[in-house]
Amino acid sequence: MNLRKIKRALISVSDKSNLEKILPTLKKFKIEIISSGGSFKKIKSLKYKCIEISNYNGYSEILNGRVKTLHPKIHAGILNVRSNKDHKKDLKEKKIPNIDLVIVDLYPFEKEMEKEVQFANLIEYIDIGGPTLIRSSAKNYMDVTVLSSIADYSKLVEELNYYQGSTTVQFRKLMSAKAFSLTAYYDSVISNYFNRKLNIKFPERKTIHGNLVENLRYGENPHQNSSLYSTSLNSNIKQVHGKSLSYNNYNDIYSTLSVLKSFKKNIGVAIIKHANPCGVSLEKNQITSFNNALNCDPISAFGGIVGINSKVSKKLANALSKKFFEVIVAKDFDKNSLKILKKKNIKLINFKNLKSVEAKHHLFLDNCFLSQDSDNTLIKKKLKIVTQKKPSAIQIRSLVFAFNVCKFVKSNAIVLSSNKSTIGIGAGQPSRVDSCKIAVNKALKFAPKKINNSVAASDAFFPFPDGIKELTKFGVKAIIQPGGSVNDRKVIKEANKAGIAMVFTGTRHFKH
Amino acid sequence: MNLRKIKRALISVSDKSNLEKILPTLKKFKIEIISSGGSFKKIKSLKYKCIEISNYNGYSEILNGRVKTLHPKIHAGILNVRSNKDHKKDLKEKKIPNIDLVIVDLYPFEKEMEKEVQFANLIEYIDIGGPTLIRSSAKNYMDVTVLSSIADYSKLVEELNYYQGSTTVQFRKLMSAKAFSLTAYYDSVISNYFNRKLNIKFPERKTIHGNLVENLRYGENPHQNSSLYSTSLNSNIKQVHGKSLSYNNYNDIYSTLSVLKSFKKNIGVAIIKHANPCGVSLEKNQITSFNNALNCDPISAFGGIVGINSKVSKKLANALSKKFFEVIVAKDFDKNSLKILKKKNIKLINFKNLKSVEAKHHLFLDNCFLSQDSDNTLIKKKLKIVTQKKPSAIQIRSLVFAFNVCKFVKSNAIVLSSNKSTIGIGAGQPSRVDSCKIAVNKALKFAPKKINNSVAASDAFFPFPDGIKELTKFGVKAIIQPGGSVNDRKVIKEANKAGIAMVFTGTRHFKH
Repeated sequence: MNLRKIKRALISVSDKSNLEKILPTLKKFKIEIISSGGSFKKIKSLKYKCIEISNYNGYSEILNGRVKTLHPKIHAGILNVRSNKDHKKDLKEKKIPNIDLVIVDLYPFEKEMEKEVQFANLIEYIDIGGPTLIRSSAKNYMDVTVLSSIADYSKLVEELNYYQGSTTVQFRKLMSAKAFSLTAYYDSVISNYFNRKLNIKFPERKTIHGNLVENLRYGENPHQNSSLYSTSLNSNIKQVHGKSLSYNNYNDIYSTLSVLKSFKKNIGVAIIKHANPCGVSLEKNQITSFNNALNCDPISAFGGIVGINSKVSKKLANALSKKFFEVIVAKDFDKNSLKILKKKNIKLINFKNLKSVEAKHHLFLDNCFLSQDSDNTLIKKKLKIVTQKKPSAIQIRSLVFAFNVCKFVKSNAIVLSSNKSTIGIGAGQPSRVDSCKIAVNKALKFAPKKINNSVAASDAFFPFPDGIKELTKFGVKAIIQPGGSVNDRKVIKEANKAGIAMVFTGTRHFKH
Repeated sequence: MNLRKIKRALISVSDKSNLEKILPTLKKFKIEIISSGGSFKKIKSLKYKCIEISNYNGYSEILNGRVKTLHPKIHAGILNVRSNKDHKKDLKEKKIPNIDLVIVDLYPFEKEMEKEVQFANLIEYIDIGGPTLIRSSAKNYMDVTVLSSIADYSKLVEELNYYQGSTTVQFRKLMSAKAFSLTAYYDSVISNYFNRKLNIKFPERKTIHGNLVENLRYGENPHQNSSLYSTSLNSNIKQVHGKSLSYNNYNDIYSTLSVLKSFKKNIGVAIIKHANPCGVSLEKNQITSFNNALNCDPISAFGGIVGINSKVSKKLANALSKKFFEVIVAKDFDKNSLKILKKKNIKLINFKNLKSVEAKHHLFLDNCFLSQDSDNTLIKKKLKIVTQKKPSAIQIRSLVFAFNVCKFVKSNAIVLSSNKSTIGIGAGQPSRVDSCKIAVNKALKFAPKKINNSVAASDAFFPFPDGIKELTKFGVKAIIQPGGSVNDRKVIKEANKAGIAMVFTGTRHFKH
């Protein structure tokens, strides 16, 4: 257990609330308190004894409080190894008393940052003394107890009461782990802020930080433990009904949101299954969009996630409630729609307050990670018509829609569309022609009347003309693809032979 | 530009090498140097003037050097705002001179950690004074220059020479960004170490850190910038030949490695395309394994990544060199194999020194991330035979092999195998029956003679009997799957009707 009696505590908290929850216990065990500035005043106002740091150190507070605790009397009092004779001798000579408990709450840098305070002003919120106190005491966990969060007051009170004014090494170690998690997190926020402001995209050392949002029941599979972390102070999506979300739900929800955010108009619907779209539509209103998205592959849509880029109406809610979906993600729900949907065993997510789109994406691969810009560009250059046949204006709109959906489908991706609704999606095949076949077969099964005069999009170039042949065989009349294959000439020839229009985007959208 | 003349520098470096590269420049511009301990001795031994910190502070070094720089004279000298009159007054009263340049190299915590030093000893490598100096000076970048890496000596020399002993605000800001990246990284390493040792799987605040390995030509697509980061000091795979690796190469290489690492014997081969296996084999030797893996889908394998869980022989090199692959990943290459393969435009990766398998995986989703245990378990419980027909011992081996491959195929995944070689892989479909069809069609195309008497694996349960029907139609004789569907009874009935054997694993392997 390695119990350590606490005789002296240093308190320096930015957030002064709840101090009254801990002070009676410190008094009860006759723990001397050192403090300064606002914390000192607050403790005094609560009628507890407290020594001001400047008196304690015999060194007056300078630079408007920028340097208060950075003093050897403080840090030697914390950092000395109690069992070390040399240390003991040094302390005796210098008349430095031990500090056994350190309670710190850091300046709220992240909170201020999220308010979009100016750089020069925000810098003032970088705490220097606080992290040093936390790190000193966390390092010396064998002898010192550190509290780096005011949320842990009750834990400390419990510990002190149970062990009569002492703490166990287990408790101190745990608090040290929390302390280093905090200082790492705190500096990661600052570091990422500096890098963002200085436009340093790939620093030599990169840290990514997250706040625990919730422990999930399990991960991608039941034998994996998992938790969700938010990279900012708020996760911004709100569950308004249903059982708790699973790992796969979150994966699907964010896949859905990425599709929805790519729509310019608030009329679209995307249905996702296994993180792949299985029906997407952007027609004149949410009802038509929903029906078309569903009809693209009603079998796969079963138990899937529906995303709606608008406020769900009563009419749509009625349509939704007739089918089995696991989650509905919408940009708000009207009152009547909620009445209908809340009767069902379904998870409802409102994303109307979702702000953030991360500029960077990170892919974890065992002992490394790939960091890259998010794929936020659809087509960089002007479309290039490469066939004798030119696409009509309507076809072009449909092609661009299909190409946009392609961005969100796992590679190799082929998307067949009629107007602005998908009618066949071929995903995740190692060979492009196989994705063509899957997309065509879906269309033949669920939209046999629409495949003639449809359009197709490919996320990357066709390496051979075989894919074109597969698509045109059943009536695809226009194709959009990046181009850039060594076989482009043969591919174009095949398109001309079929009498269809083809455009090159010059922009590829692999997604794995 | 906001030039700031440097009059006084504090140097505290754990790694004393290369100091001679910076000292002449500091001398040239008459910069006074303060230092302590080993840095002080080193500077003196190089015959440069230097003031010892204890003399400077008038406070002797205590606790065997644990508290050296944590003194108000140091930190007020760094942190004061030069244009602030109150600060100026404080400094004058206390006779504190400005410190304009801070050079720190931290204790090598991570390096020692990788040597697997004991907890209590490793703790001594947690630097307290160093990060505080770095953070103080980085915060006050308007007036102070901070160097947090000895690799930046030449940059500082250049800056001082160009601006005659001064630095620009651009330089100071950049160095501050680097400084906070370092302190964040440093504490992230410590924090993750504590959490690992205390078995805290999902801390309230989580940081992930990486060292820049290389800037890639581009990301998943050419319009995305990208870089590779290593989560430890070494990335552990070594490229021995070929052009530089791309984002998609890395993704595929690590997909390949995850398959190879699941093999118990060093005889297997896995071919990967678009991060999905398109042929896997674990037969009696590397040649048979390669041929079988290739024959599973020779069209998709074109331009793919071949992974070999053994040392590549001359014979295998000859076979490999006859086909077009982009990357070969192997557990070493023998001399003769290298001679053959290096003649080709191919990327060769040796992974014999790969140590790490991360226990955690993180999936990034816009403004959050999911953290979960890696999927390192194949089958948790004993296999449960659910059909009248029992699988033979050979079938069971083949089933377990196929189920293992399923783990690495994107969901919904169906893998057909003959012995210990895949003959059909159906990946990434939102509906399971579609994955069955894809797998069967592959087998019919490339291994029509082997599909009869083959076995099949499914990564998750069959929701309906239709998938079983698809598989048994062409001669699949045994199936392995997790079980657990509400329709299990119907699914088992279908298997019995077809007279095949089926086993339940109770363990699911979704992968998205």
